[in-house]
Amino acid sequence: MPESMLALVKPGSAPGMSLETRPKPSPDENDVLIRILKTGVCGTDVHIYDWDDWASHRVHPPLIVGHEFVGVIEEVGDAVEDTKPGDIVSGEGHIGCGHCFFCRTGQGHICREAQIIGVDRDGAFVQFFRFPAANLWKVRPEIPSDVAAIFDPFGNAMHTVMAQSVAGKSVAVVGAGSIGLMACKIAAVAGALTVIAVDPQEHKRKLALGFGATFAFDPAEEGWKQALLAHTREASGVDVVLEMSGSRTGIRDTFELVRPGGEVALLGIPPSDVSLNLSENVIFKSVTVRGINGRLMFETWYQCEQFLLEGKLDLLPLITHRYPYRQFEDAFEVLHRGEAVKVILDWTE
Amino acid sequence: MPESMLALVKPGSAPGMSLETRPKPSPDENDVLIRILKTGVCGTDVHIYDWDDWASHRVHPPLIVGHEFVGVIEEVGDAVEDTKPGDIVSGEGHIGCGHCFFCRTGQGHICREAQIIGVDRDGAFVQFFRFPAANLWKVRPEIPSDVAAIFDPFGNAMHTVMAQSVAGKSVAVVGAGSIGLMACKIAAVAGALTVIAVDPQEHKRKLALGFGATFAFDPAEEGWKQALLAHTREASGVDVVLEMSGSRTGIRDTFELVRPGGEVALLGIPPSDVSLNLSENVIFKSVTVRGINGRLMFETWYQCEQFLLEGKLDLLPLITHRYPYRQFEDAFEVLHRGEAVKVILDWTE
Amino acid sequence: MPESMLALVKPGSAPGMSLETRPKPSPDENDVLIRILKTGVCGTDVHIYDWDDWASHRVHPPLIVGHEFVGVIEEVGDAVEDTKPGDIVSGEGHIGCGHCFFCRTGQGHICREAQIIGVDRDGAFVQFFRFPAANLWKVRPEIPSDVAAIFDPFGNAMHTVMAQSVAGKSVAVVGAGSIGLMACKIAAVAGALTVIAVDPQEHKRKLALGFGATFAFDPAEEGWKQALLAHTREASGVDVVLEMSGSRTGIRDTFELVRPGGEVALLGIPPSDVSLNLSENVIFKSVTVRGINGRLMFETWYQCEQFLLEGKLDLLPLITHRYPYRQFEDAFEVLHRGEAVKVILDWTE
Amino acid sequence: MPESMLALVKPGSAPGMSLETRPKPSPDENDVLIRILKTGVCGTDVHIYDWDDWASHRVHPPLIVGHEFVGVIEEVGDAVEDTKPGDIVSGEGHIGCGHCFFCRTGQGHICREAQIIGVDRDGAFVQFFRFPAANLWKVRPEIPSDVAAIFDPFGNAMHTVMAQSVAGKSVAVVGAGSIGLMACKIAAVAGALTVIAVDPQEHKRKLALGFGATFAFDPAEEGWKQALLAHTREASGVDVVLEMSGSRTGIRDTFELVRPGGEVALLGIPPSDVSLNLSENVIFKSVTVRGINGRLMFETWYQCEQFLLEGKLDLLPLITHRYPYRQFEDAFEVLHRGEAVKVILDWTE
Repeated sequence: MPESMLALVKPGSAPGMSLETRPKPSPDENDVLIRILKTGVCGTDVHIYDWDDWASHRVHPPLIVGHEFVGVIEEVGDAVEDTKPGDIVSGEGHIGCGHCFFCRTGQGHICREAQIIGVDRDGAFVQFFRFPAANLWKVRPEIPSDVAAIFDPFGNAMHTVMAQSVAGKSVAVVGAGSIGLMACKIAAVAGALTVIAVDPQEHKRKLALGFGATFAFDPAEEGWKQALLAHTREASGVDVVLEMSGSRTGIRDTFELVRPGGEVALLGIPPSDVSLNLSENVIFKSVTVRGINGRLMFETWYQCEQFLLEGKLDLLPLITHRYPYRQFEDAFEVLHRGEAVKVILDWTE
Repeated sequence: MPESMLALVKPGSAPGMSLETRPKPSPDENDVLIRILKTGVCGTDVHIYDWDDWASHRVHPPLIVGHEFVGVIEEVGDAVEDTKPGDIVSGEGHIGCGHCFFCRTGQGHICREAQIIGVDRDGAFVQFFRFPAANLWKVRPEIPSDVAAIFDPFGNAMHTVMAQSVAGKSVAVVGAGSIGLMACKIAAVAGALTVIAVDPQEHKRKLALGFGATFAFDPAEEGWKQALLAHTREASGVDVVLEMSGSRTGIRDTFELVRPGGEVALLGIPPSDVSLNLSENVIFKSVTVRGINGRLMFETWYQCEQFLLEGKLDLLPLITHRYPYRQFEDAFEVLHRGEAVKVILDWTE
Repeated sequence: MPESMLALVKPGSAPGMSLETRPKPSPDENDVLIRILKTGVCGTDVHIYDWDDWASHRVHPPLIVGHEFVGVIEEVGDAVEDTKPGDIVSGEGHIGCGHCFFCRTGQGHICREAQIIGVDRDGAFVQFFRFPAANLWKVRPEIPSDVAAIFDPFGNAMHTVMAQSVAGKSVAVVGAGSIGLMACKIAAVAGALTVIAVDPQEHKRKLALGFGATFAFDPAEEGWKQALLAHTREASGVDVVLEMSGSRTGIRDTFELVRPGGEVALLGIPPSDVSLNLSENVIFKSVTVRGINGRLMFETWYQCEQFLLEGKLDLLPLITHRYPYRQFEDAFEVLHRGEAVKVILDWTE
Repeated sequence: MPESMLALVKPGSAPGMSLETRPKPSPDENDVLIRILKTGVCGTDVHIYDWDDWASHRVHPPLIVGHEFVGVIEEVGDAVEDTKPGDIVSGEGHIGCGHCFFCRTGQGHICREAQIIGVDRDGAFVQFFRFPAANLWKVRPEIPSDVAAIFDPFGNAMHTVMAQSVAGKSVAVVGAGSIGLMACKIAAVAGALTVIAVDPQEHKRKLALGFGATFAFDPAEEGWKQALLAHTREASGVDVVLEMSGSRTGIRDTFELVRPGGEVALLGIPPSDVSLNLSENVIFKSVTVRGINGRLMFETWYQCEQFLLEGKLDLLPLITHRYPYRQFEDAFEVLHRGEAVKVILDWTE
């Protein structure tokens, strides 16, 4: 008789999620089985919970959700080397096809067949998680499990900041949610001389100022752009702008703030088309724009690890709420209320 | 009594231009006086002639027009070294302030105070042209004067192609006007393995196929995108797309054609805001986009010269019409009819 | 009773090789078994045959030699996807550990535990070759098997040329052996405006001139450097120099030929330490030097394939000799005589 | 009757220097006249004082020495814009020809005709200094004159560190003299996660640990390399090594310490040829090596200014000695004794 386990599931095409019983999986030759310890709740999970436009077009229920996780290896497939039961692991949630041009040239994160766990295939909000060994990331013992659980968004922030050199430069981060906040601190560590956070929520601006930002601006305040630009060289604009709000206004601000010859990295996902003044703000200014997706496999993961091991930043202040997994409804509620920065579910109870 | 000369002038805020008499200038310490031999007529000159929306907002008549030129040094200012009467010269038409961050770091083409000759200050469609020595480009005797006259748009094409590596890649050029055609050939010489031209005009597609392009597509034809993508690796898109049409459709096509991880260079100037699907076509695809303006001073000029000296391309086939400068009306008429590719005015008669 | 097969073996610590009988291997879960069709003979194989200093320090007999190969899939391991019996394949001969920083960041070719087939572990000069599926390269049917057999050195040449941009530049190739000759042609296709071959052997200089080189110089001739530099801009030196001779003289010439601000790529392996004038030739000139090892996995392989598929070069003229594998002694003899460029062994008889 | 002034002069081909009377110069059209306030004494000045091998081959006495300076504009040439009497200035001491490929493409620091002030032409150890306006750097009032006087070596350090990205990386600085110490701090600010200083002098290692370095090693101590490598990822070597000692041993250590795929920047000038194991330490490791000369004009200057304005580092702790210019002999003596880090001469007495 097969063992069973609990999983947080999107059961059908309607708002909400439920804990359901599923058979405990067993790993194939190149897979591992992970006993999940902790998981992070992402904005993406909230979209799926709410069953908004994006979710209803992308997700096919029933689906086990979740992609931010840390766990312990329970069992390894016959062909798996270099990991063993007891290892603490997280993993890259983009599962590439492994065979295409992208997967074979270090760009598996943009493989056209890539499936994201918890979105396109069953995810990590579960007691036992079957996962391909090639996507594993072994967690060093110095790193707390709460932090290991959120390597995925940490990697988004790291990849965005490191997509261009910020050393010696001014950097603006538009949108100071959890990833934006991480980006502020990463940018400061990575050599940005000035880090400017832009967010309409006061508590996030405050957090930003304690987390790498030199200045923080409220985009609802009149004259904020002028005031911000006054902090840039010859008032000509910001060297590097990181867009993490995904809002149309944030994106348009981004292209106004960047200086001639400057660089923009776009991580936030706008819900629909965005109208841009390309002539003035990209072409005449000779701006370079980079779309950012996921994390580099595994260059970004090594960077994240190294920043932590060298004590250059601490993500714990961003984890504002923790719940046992059975109280997942509380987690979504606190995220809906906009009070939380990062929320952790504990699966070890 | 001061000598006089003829100049092609935008006399006032209305369509048309006229030949007018002006005093022959004399050079300041760091200037030269150039006797103009030949000039190229640019789309920008046509906008100013027509007095369209863009022109009426940017140009302040009366103004001597023109920015593509070749001439012979007539006189040099007291502090000018390294050039002397008799030298054949062209020159960079972006006149930077010389003192700002941009001018002092090799980015004078995006100096915020830069003035473009023939647009922001008096230009080169004139018998004698006063010009700053720092902006001069000495023309090697091997290069025909017709070609020297169009180094400016040649430089636009070169700068756009060389803004990223195209070696070993597929390149699409959207918009095969004179600059797009140059870009096709430059890309082929610079190592692109496949060059794809996209243009609605049949005679331009034909020209492209004889000027570096491997394939040419008509964006009015049904299914053209599918057919084009079939020529790319794993049908995943084009490695590098160069946007030279400036049309909203061309720009949107550009972002659909580029492959995940690919690169886009934007040179064409859209007349108004453009609505883009940033999520699908820039962010999830991790595309890099570069706005291109002018030419690098003088890296691009050296590249242009070297391509010509090594016999890698010949621009003469693009020069479809030549007129004495007094027949400037004929030049604008043939450009209006859409028959010409590149038109030269001769000032030596 | 297990099947057997023939293998070309380095039997012990002395010059020579011999054909020996070995058991036919069977693939593990993530391996394939390849029936070898053709193999290329590399200078490395000659070193091992001759048992020179390098070989006697690096190689531990008995060892099946050979690393340049093409074959057909005979059998696949249980966990192998995306390839099947009948597929024509070559493969990357650097077998990384798969788990270290280098292997996980797209730098498997410099994994510190990497083993090279035919050097550090049994190689491909054999009738049936067990090989890890992760290192396979599927050969497109358009590519002749003779060419597929030498993708390995072709990849060395490609990696060296593509390690920097050569578009619009002058390139010198020091040492026009088979890899140097490939590099001449690749550089020309990749946009080099001038390609200069340097080799003491006249027949190689001649081959180079028909294979991408614009000029060829004999380093034994007096005044050759002066003559060469006269072909460079302002006689200031070559933009990019590719060192493929591995000789001390060739390396020193390389650093003299490169222009201030230029680039050097070192592929040739000098047998011992080299004394360099770093002050004059690297530091004051601000030269960038890149050590090149192997090929990028698998970016270089895709580039090689694409150059061939687009018909930009043809490697067949470099294959000067072909032998059935039982006549391997003839192959080594013709290589010893210095007459051959590239020699193929046929295993299909 | 022309005014006169005092200048520190190398009078002839023998050790020593002397204060001599010279006519006060007047500026040409594109020059300025600077009243010198303070100057820094460089190792180069010591070589010229000592009249060692290098100096006797490079310098042609009589020559006014000195290239590190700050002063106040006394007078400007007729064609000089954007500066005026009273401005505080330093300046780039490499005077390029202004007309060659290098000067016109932002590489004036490697112009083959470049003259260094105080080495190839009269220098800045003088009461009134005639200087080309194009090479001026205006000093912001927030920056102390002692610091402005040493922008030249500060720029060497900045250029060396910024020649590659150090963000998220380990960096070793071999040779912790004044420029090496600056490099330690710059690297730390620019995002290096670990900075390792290597120097045989204990007081310099101590200074380094207070000036950006995480660790400091004595290369005279047995087993130091092993101990150092233990601080690197998988003990595979340092990501970026900056060579600032100019000693043969330091250079050889540099190439042993760098990891596979790592980067080396060479700034220190070895007095003669250096023998390197290129195979093991550059080629097989696929290392990138950059020769560094001078400073980028003026990108490096802007970086230096910005680091100071943002309060990211303070150079004053490196200035260990200050003398009125008439006591120049004391300055050279303290430098000879090896006790000083940076020595300033004051010309305002």
